[in-house]
Order: sequence, then structure tokens, then C-alpha cells
Amino acid sequence: MPRSPVWHAIATTLEGEISRGHYRPGDKLPTEAELATRFGVNRHTVRHALKDLGDRGLTHSRRGAGVFVRMAPMDYPIGGRTRFSQNVRASGRLPDRRQLRMETRPADEAEAEALQLAPGEAVLVLEGISLAGGVPMAHFVSLFPIARLPDLDETLREVNSVTEALRRHGITDYTRAQTRLTAEPASATQALHLNLREGEPLLRSTSINLGPDGAPVEQGHTWFAGDRVALTINHEDTGPAK
Amino acid sequence: MPRSPVWHAIATTLEGEISRGHYRPGDKLPTEAELATRFGVNRHTVRHALKDLGDRGLTHSRRGAGVFVRMAPMDYPIGGRTRFSQNVRASGRLPDRRQLRMETRPADEAEAEALQLAPGEAVLVLEGISLAGGVPMAHFVSLFPIARLPDLDETLREVNSVTEALRRHGITDYTRAQTRLTAEPASATQALHLNLREGEPLLRSTSINLGPDGAPVEQGHTWFAGDRVALTINHEDTGPAK
Repeated sequence: MPRSPVWHAIATTLEGEISRGHYRPGDKLPTEAELATRFGVNRHTVRHALKDLGDRGLTHSRRGAGVFVRMAPMDYPIGGRTRFSQNVRASGRLPDRRQLRMETRPADEAEAEALQLAPGEAVLVLEGISLAGGVPMAHFVSLFPIARLPDLDETLREVNSVTEALRRHGITDYTRAQTRLTAEPASATQALHLNLREGEPLLRSTSINLGPDGAPVEQGHTWFAGDRVALTINHEDTGPAK
Repeated sequence: MPRSPVWHAIATTLEGEISRGHYRPGDKLPTEAELATRFGVNRHTVRHALKDLGDRGLTHSRRGAGVFVRMAPMDYPIGGRTRFSQNVRASGRLPDRRQLRMETRPADEAEAEALQLAPGEAVLVLEGISLAGGVPMAHFVSLFPIARLPDLDETLREVNSVTEALRRHGITDYTRAQTRLTAEPASATQALHLNLREGEPLLRSTSINLGPDGAPVEQGHTWFAGDRVALTINHEDTGPAK
């Protein structure tokens, strides 16, 4: 009986580990050198196995960065009541947030206009990384008018959800007025946080959320990893474009 | 009276030419060597002038590609009745289209599903570059179900607008069902057509347009230059996100 080649056995082993979730979508596989040590083969054989996984669409390699488990972009519906946690749960993943910064500072002119504040009024800045099933999906910076939401920073320290924190401050519902979308290259720090390379495409969304009284409660900037999220808009309920 | 430095005079001249529209937003300025010849100075002096324009936000340089006149991103509203020509006119620019390809071929499986055709049924493929005021804004590929729109190719040869061509085929109105947005790196050919560098971020939109009877009349793929367009969505008329 002919033996199947060694590279094929290695590819099958790695494929099994990917399908069992040892390596998850977005994860980096071990380096060629590490895999060569693990399987007791030379790097040429490892490269052959990795090429096979890549050819079958299970992984993709980024020059200089390594080989990553491919993921299908997550559908992310954008509408009047967009909630990150809800969208991630609908895709069958667990939402999470890694906080990078929380501080209170004066609003600059553009921020003050967006949030209907006097320039120099204080805003609470919340910066972090949004994750879905442990994979970093987006870098976000949210601004809140702290005069309208005193001690929101303390609430945000207790709960890991903006929606829940706003609810505790009496904002039982909020709606999105407008979304503005552009494509931007990842900065060096965004690349580190999102596990991609500097300059790779990010989908940038800027939006304003209004409380029940129509006053802005949040200005949100989100930079989605371009290959991990597809924003979807249903126009069926929409009126004519203005 | 102290004379102003030569680099300053050159910067002022170039600024005047930009403001009078000799060089328009998105245009590439002549090379350092060409400018040195024109002004009878060395390249060091030219570089000083170009740095001044860049520092003042009038131009931006792309390594290896040259110096370009900066443009503010064009607001591009996305809604149930999105029309490229209308959006461009609303921004005060003239819309135009440069055709790259028109051909009839069988639909692949995904295309057939999107257009509600049997696999292998013929689609008309229209590929081109959309321009606003002479500046390339987007690369597009549109697919039309040719059985429902016989001889659409001949009409598209006569008129430079998809909206007008569809009207002549009895589609007096069409509405967008869904838009799907991702960020992708520009391919080498897209970079050439859009006057940017390979790998720069593009905002990709995939949408389906429906005729008055609810049957799909067009599947559109558009890759917008990431720094020239901001897609805007007004959620005010939208129902709750599903």
C-alpha cells in the first residue's frame, strides 16, 4: 500500500486542529521553524503542507507576518439600532471588549459640534478593541457628553457593554442618526492591536447615537479589519435617498 | 527690502495653479526633475517648495508615485435610490464613465443566485471607471440579466448612463435591495486605473437593484478609492435593524 507523503499527513493534522478550534479564525499558526521541530521534518516539508492548506483556502499568509487561519467575513448589519454585541451574537460568536483608554478631556471643535456641546465642554473618551469569539474585529474610539451622563466612567468600569452602561444612566434606547464610511490604511498601532499589517485596509465608520430626547449621547469611530467584517445595509424599509 | 526665498515663490506659483484648476484634486504634479527644469533651480529647492505645499495640506505625496493634489472626500449618500450621476452632480462635479469592457457570458453560480437566473444563463458584463470632475473615483463591474433586457448592450453603447439605458428598456425606476460593504486592497490594475498605489484601501460595495416588478435588474460591484469618497447612510427613515 503506498504511503501518503509526510507533508500530506502534516496538513491533515493541522486541518484537524483548525476544525477542532485549537487554532481559530484569525489566529497565527506556529512558524515554519516551530512546525519543523514539532513534526521532526525539514522546513521544506512544512512549507509544502502550509501551501496545501493555503491552496484549499483554510489559511492565508501575510508576507513577513506569518500564516493565519482564514475566516469568512462576519455580516454586520448597519441600521437605526446597530448594537455591536447583538450583531456578534447573531453571528454565533461571543462579543468582548478590551479597553485601551478611558479619560475625560475637553471636546475639540468638531467633536463639540457633533455632540451639540459648547467647545471645551468635557467628553469621556473610551478607546478599545472589539472582539468576536476572541478574534479582534475593530478598533474603536467613543466620545460621550459627560455633563449629560455624569459618572458614566464609573459605570463603564463595572459593565463591559456601552448599551448596558447607558441604560443604567436612563438611556433605555438610542438610535443612530447617520453613519459615514471610508476606507483607511491601518496605522502601526492599529496593525498591532488587530493582528494585521500596517497599511492593510480598514473600514472606518463614524456615527452619532441619539437618546430618546433626540440629544446626542455618543459619537463613535470604529475601524473594522477589512477582511473580517462585511457591513450590510437593508434598504427595504428605507425611504428615498435625499 | 528682504527678498522672499526662491522656494517660497515656487510654492506660491504652484498654489495659484492649483487654485485656478490647472492641477485638479487627484492630479499628479510634475516630477521634481520637471519642476527643477521649469523653474531653473536645483531639486533641493523644488523639494522645499513641495514640502511647504504638503505641510499646508494642499498636496500629499505617495512614496514612489509622486505628489498629488489633495481632495476632500466626496459625500456619497447610500440609500434605496442611489444613483452615481445624481450623487456626483449633488457634489458640484460632472459625472463621467470610462468603459473598460462590455461582454456577454454565462453567469457563474453566485451571480445566477443574486440575479435569480438559472446557472449558465447569459449576463451582460459592463466594467469601467467612474469619474467625478475628471478624477477617477471608482472601479465598477455591473452584471445585467440579458434575457430580461435584450439589446441592452446596444443601448449602453448609445448612452453613457445606466439609469438612462434601463429607462429605455422600460425600467423607469429601480431600487436597491441591499448593500454589502468591505475594505479591500487595490490590485495592480485597479491602482493604475484609479491613480493610486497597489494595496491602498478601497471601499468595496456590492448591491442588487430591483425593477418595479421586484425582479433583479443589476448586480453592481464598486471599488471606491478610499480617500476620495465617504459613503453616508441616513438612518432616520430606517426601521429597526433586523
